[in-house]
Amino acid sequence: MIQPNERIDDLQIDGLRLIQNPDWFCFGVDAVLLAHFAAQGIKKDAEVLDLCTGNGIIPLLLTAKSSARKIWGLEIQNPVWEMACRSVKLNHLGEKVSLQCGDLKNAATLYGKSRFDYITCNPPYKENGGGLPCKDEIVTLARHEILCTLEDVFSVSEQLLKPGGKLAIVHRPERLADMITYMRKYHIEPKRLRFVHPAPKKTANMILIEGARQGKPKLFLDPPLYVYDAPNVYSEEINQIYGRKI
Amino acid sequence: MIQPNERIDDLQIDGLRLIQNPDWFCFGVDAVLLAHFAAQGIKKDAEVLDLCTGNGIIPLLLTAKSSARKIWGLEIQNPVWEMACRSVKLNHLGEKVSLQCGDLKNAATLYGKSRFDYITCNPPYKENGGGLPCKDEIVTLARHEILCTLEDVFSVSEQLLKPGGKLAIVHRPERLADMITYMRKYHIEPKRLRFVHPAPKKTANMILIEGARQGKPKLFLDPPLYVYDAPNVYSEEINQIYGRKI
Repeated sequence: MIQPNERIDDLQIDGLRLIQNPDWFCFGVDAVLLAHFAAQGIKKDAEVLDLCTGNGIIPLLLTAKSSARKIWGLEIQNPVWEMACRSVKLNHLGEKVSLQCGDLKNAATLYGKSRFDYITCNPPYKENGGGLPCKDEIVTLARHEILCTLEDVFSVSEQLLKPGGKLAIVHRPERLADMITYMRKYHIEPKRLRFVHPAPKKTANMILIEGARQGKPKLFLDPPLYVYDAPNVYSEEINQIYGRKI
Repeated sequence: MIQPNERIDDLQIDGLRLIQNPDWFCFGVDAVLLAHFAAQGIKKDAEVLDLCTGNGIIPLLLTAKSSARKIWGLEIQNPVWEMACRSVKLNHLGEKVSLQCGDLKNAATLYGKSRFDYITCNPPYKENGGGLPCKDEIVTLARHEILCTLEDVFSVSEQLLKPGGKLAIVHRPERLADMITYMRKYHIEPKRLRFVHPAPKKTANMILIEGARQGKPKLFLDPPLYVYDAPNVYSEEINQIYGRKI
């Protein structure tokens, strides 16, 4: 079931296990927080799609954290997608989770327009040309906006979402203005925003934002989320989020 | 020097005093925080303009908190402007602070284009038609977007600012998406954003945002500002801001 260089990690919820290749990347707190944030907005029996799904961490967590009917995931890199498919099998979730290998820019052709109730995306954070390239091409493509720009995520989501359907993204605060600009451009109104701070007096270093296709303008802030309460001490909320169902 | 219904308050910095009419409105923490936030961005000898200046609280605070060369203030309501002018006289600041009575939409004609290094604005928070009207017309016009919309503030600021000049605004978080949209529309790039929370675990209820005319996209978050650390106990930072020079 696993290849050399891979390992199996326990996701601490519903007995879920994830195959990861540490030479590429391992999931971080951002994926867990996005799954938690999105699960708060996913309704019963929703059809959900995870763009840039990578090792499949978000679809797997959503099977436990949300009451979605089915969760789809799209990944462009074939070896990563293949590994994610093995995680789905490992968890016997083939009925509930379906992963495709393909280019996000063709997603509307692949899935059909106005198809989904909810879309999640943990996109590459680094602009093309920004930051150092990674030693491995798989890692470079996962982290940099080379095969998929931030704007692509919003333009394709507008096509894929039902009217009123929602998109949730995790990203860096420095891209907030870009995200809001693209959301308005593609008629996905920003409705809910949460800042994630390393600790209570620290500047936020992550944002979670949810928009609704054709939503009415009015943005609600969630309370700040602090990862640590003290050095090496996770906050109560982080402890609850890891392993918690909504 | 003061009229019936008016009172004189000590601004706790440089001996400054402010004439206020409690039947209209008295300055709140938002004005003090905006002056503090803006002062961090105002350079020595800057030419500064405060739009929607009201009782003149922001120009007065900026004489103490910044090293601006001159601070101008524009207020549309004649009785409010007249009261603010008496505060300027009371403080013997006629050389440094100059207040005009006029419509913000004509400000580029009044002051000239590309004139200012820095603009501040504590605008009406309520959209026209949103919220209850106030019993007094002066209060209604100060609180509701009747004579001046949020978009007006950005469109006129683009005209008034020098290239690279900055605009700082205080507003409610629910308008963040609107503000960023207008800033991009009028080429005032969002550069600095600070959330003000009533207390550390509470959702932010105020935002301070600074944009630069023709600035390069990249938004920096300031650390969160907490007003109270515990019930009725102001945070250390709030105690410092009241009465503190930058």
